[in-house]
Amino acid sequence: MYYLAVRQFARTLRILDTILTKAERYAEARKFDVNNFVSARLAPDMLPLVVQIRVACDTAKMSAANLAQKEAPKHEDTEKTFEELHARIGKALAFIDGLTESDFAKATPDLVIKMANPQGKGLRANDYLFARQIPNFYFHVVSAYDILRHGGVDVGKSDYLGELPLVDV
Amino acid sequence: MYYLAVRQFARTLRILDTILTKAERYAEARKFDVNNFVSARLAPDMLPLVVQIRVACDTAKMSAANLAQKEAPKHEDTEKTFEELHARIGKALAFIDGLTESDFAKATPDLVIKMANPQGKGLRANDYLFARQIPNFYFHVVSAYDILRHGGVDVGKSDYLGELPLVDV
Repeated sequence: MYYLAVRQFARTLRILDTILTKAERYAEARKFDVNNFVSARLAPDMLPLVVQIRVACDTAKMSAANLAQKEAPKHEDTEKTFEELHARIGKALAFIDGLTESDFAKATPDLVIKMANPQGKGLRANDYLFARQIPNFYFHVVSAYDILRHGGVDVGKSDYLGELPLVDV
Repeated sequence: MYYLAVRQFARTLRILDTILTKAERYAEARKFDVNNFVSARLAPDMLPLVVQIRVACDTAKMSAANLAQKEAPKHEDTEKTFEELHARIGKALAFIDGLTESDFAKATPDLVIKMANPQGKGLRANDYLFARQIPNFYFHVVSAYDILRHGGVDVGKSDYLGELPLVDV
């Protein structure tokens, strides 16, 4: 199950990358610099697009690392352009895609994962995944989407959900 | 696992209910009618708050029903006030909270769940949960949050994540 969840994070990061590309096409058509979106926010005291993308990447990366009990690569927070945002997503994906199902074989619901904050506290694997990492990941992915949507980019639910592996019934 | 996922949906619906209460307190302090938020949107061609809440409720309700292979109660889309939005969340929770772990015992990854759209198509249980229902649920919960946050309501990440079942490490 942990592997399944991590594969879905990777799938959604690829979707987020495609949504960024849609924003680039929109900016091109409207003849403005797409990097104007990098610092866009929905409220003056809310995180800008660049940080929404970083935290989405880090949440996916850390979920994979912690559940596979591997060390995560460190990625510096220096992005200022869409090109660098694509690269940040690419770095998170490179790490996650390098893990296989067997890397998660030792993770059981009893595994306690240490939180960076608050210090000295942790969450059991199922709570970590369902109550903390999944909601946190989508919080930042959807806020990134909402910032771009609010800014006029023509994205919709089908872009966000991506192609589903439908079967005939 | 399906039960775990459904319990998290219920947990997040309770959090959404609390966020609505925070919006009511904000409107009271600022002396405006909180129901002005019901039709608020982030873009003119995006769904308003009322529909974000309805779809979040229905996604949670239908996930629970389909994975437990039970019939879901029908809830009419008539809400116009925050009082009615709280009630809508309450109705979804009443159904979900009535299901127990044993109701999900027959759901296996091979179970194919019929989609309302596109017709004649379905998703296997794990794809249904991870690729469709979880991303869709958080899409609407976070968009509801973002609409209120954009409208000035003083909510933050800790409101959204709620109290986590931390353990000492």
